[in-house]
Amino acid sequence: MNTKLQWLKNKMLSLDLQGMIISNPVNIKYLTGIDAEGTLVITPKENIYITDGRYIEYVHSVLTLYDEIIVYNVTDLSKDDYENIFMFCENVGFEEYYITYAQYKEFIRKYKINNFVETEKMIEKQRMIKDEDELSSLNKACNITDDCFKFIISYIKPGMTEKHIAKKINDYYNENSEGPSFETIVASGENSSKPHAVASDRKIQTNDIITIDMGCKVNGYCSDMTRTIFVGEPTEEMKNVYDLVLSNQKFVLDQYKEGTSTRQITKMVENDFKLYGYDLIHGLGHGVGLEIHEPPYVSYTSDTNLHENMVVTDEPGIYIPGKFGVRIEDTVQITKFGCSSLTKADKNYVII
Amino acid sequence: MNTKLQWLKNKMLSLDLQGMIISNPVNIKYLTGIDAEGTLVITPKENIYITDGRYIEYVHSVLTLYDEIIVYNVTDLSKDDYENIFMFCENVGFEEYYITYAQYKEFIRKYKINNFVETEKMIEKQRMIKDEDELSSLNKACNITDDCFKFIISYIKPGMTEKHIAKKINDYYNENSEGPSFETIVASGENSSKPHAVASDRKIQTNDIITIDMGCKVNGYCSDMTRTIFVGEPTEEMKNVYDLVLSNQKFVLDQYKEGTSTRQITKMVENDFKLYGYDLIHGLGHGVGLEIHEPPYVSYTSDTNLHENMVVTDEPGIYIPGKFGVRIEDTVQITKFGCSSLTKADKNYVII
Repeated sequence: MNTKLQWLKNKMLSLDLQGMIISNPVNIKYLTGIDAEGTLVITPKENIYITDGRYIEYVHSVLTLYDEIIVYNVTDLSKDDYENIFMFCENVGFEEYYITYAQYKEFIRKYKINNFVETEKMIEKQRMIKDEDELSSLNKACNITDDCFKFIISYIKPGMTEKHIAKKINDYYNENSEGPSFETIVASGENSSKPHAVASDRKIQTNDIITIDMGCKVNGYCSDMTRTIFVGEPTEEMKNVYDLVLSNQKFVLDQYKEGTSTRQITKMVENDFKLYGYDLIHGLGHGVGLEIHEPPYVSYTSDTNLHENMVVTDEPGIYIPGKFGVRIEDTVQITKFGCSSLTKADKNYVII
Repeated sequence: MNTKLQWLKNKMLSLDLQGMIISNPVNIKYLTGIDAEGTLVITPKENIYITDGRYIEYVHSVLTLYDEIIVYNVTDLSKDDYENIFMFCENVGFEEYYITYAQYKEFIRKYKINNFVETEKMIEKQRMIKDEDELSSLNKACNITDDCFKFIISYIKPGMTEKHIAKKINDYYNENSEGPSFETIVASGENSSKPHAVASDRKIQTNDIITIDMGCKVNGYCSDMTRTIFVGEPTEEMKNVYDLVLSNQKFVLDQYKEGTSTRQITKMVENDFKLYGYDLIHGLGHGVGLEIHEPPYVSYTSDTNLHENMVVTDEPGIYIPGKFGVRIEDTVQITKFGCSSLTKADKNYVII
């Protein structure tokens, strides 16, 4: 059995769960490598993956004997088969944040479950801490993103549209990775003042500021990086805002380590921004893994402390409505006594 | 109040529901026109839409006084506000097929709900029957799809990749509508033998068969059409399969009307395919509306009868593994005594 499934079995033991139904496809991918539609069922005797005809062949190509997972086609399972699965289980866990109320009732009926127990995102919590293989995939995705950034800053010329540049980034990712990990943002001029801008038909002009938020996937694991660059010499105001964002982004890198309070670090950046008359209008960062946004979140409302081998972003931003915005973001691995930025692209003024 | 909200209020009255929480964003779009993230809450006194800062401005731009919907920013609502919302409600409905078990428990706690009642997809069921405005949007989306098909068959040349052709279709839709209603399928040669193929880098060759599955959105409403075309003269086998699929597709159009059993009509097509040694390996059709696939489904497992002003696809297909496939699909409005195909593109042999 792989180490992640073994972890789950031990966790279930400690919670007095004899069985569990896992429905969240990201959690299933995490535990098994399977990226399909289906349900993972853990019983005292065996691990079962139930899927349908579309995926049977693929699933068999992913799994090895070592995985110890039996694959069933949903059409081959009878009423009795379902009722036998948890026959000797007193407590069966489920993902209350994933399945609908209708599915909850249906599972109890179909599997004849005695005691259906909420598991409080225990797999999501485990996913926050990355193992060596995961860190290796994340690091590769970040390296490709660094390379893509180098490529794109040598490519961008005034007159090109934001959409054209975003497409070029996507093409690069499609050639060199499993593709973009989210919708690439290229926001120029006043568009950069919107924190969640999408690439538009606006053409790049001289004296523009351009925010580029980009990332790709390797083995399902995501990278996430933002750089803000200049077309021609930036104004004093742009430089001041850039310097303020960058000094805070670097300050956060200095603070990120085992034990850092995500709430406090957010507050510190907010306070510094306020000193200069600016607001911190979005969270400071988020976990990155099989999902582009996943726990832990680095914000006021988060009560997590950072731990070794969490991978989170560090992305302060300042947005001046109708004028421009600056965001600088790295994907960062937390270590025992500090952190290590996995994205490494230039953060000095990049002027094209 | 608009007619759809008025319908809902009457329906709730008949079910003895004094309040309801609507979470499914497609149902909210249907009832209010709002296409955002938020929750629609119906109380005896008022209709409330709860959203966050990102959407407040947009939501106000969509609604008029006539809608009688009060908009709240979630951050402005206190614990007491929530507890007051259903103060005099004995029974409050919810969407058990949409909200998670965790949300179910959270709603009961937060709103202090006495009796939280499953509503058995009542809004989804109502959405099956389209009103005049909806039919007009669907018809427009289908007309644009017909035009796009005319354009694309004059554009396709051997040597182009499937992806290139799909992109051209998407560009057409982005220019002339709200964009594609699903991922455009262009499946050529042996790729056409996969019912759920995606556009690949395969280049179109002489003597290819090409399956093109395409649709767009107008006012949020989708079109869905498939045509199978030929590059150069088709073989006898291709013609025979094409003729068999087309005769069944037309047979279904003859049968579709108020009262048609979706299960029986599927069985009839399957029987005819079997006579010639082929299988019907996917459903015969599906509802089309705000979602590209929505109830009613036309398949064996469906127990719906068709009704006037349902809009469903008619899409039989035959797939010969490793060789080729043929699917022909129209989006069709059911009428009292027959049906009216909203997509009208040529179904004779199209040879390019």
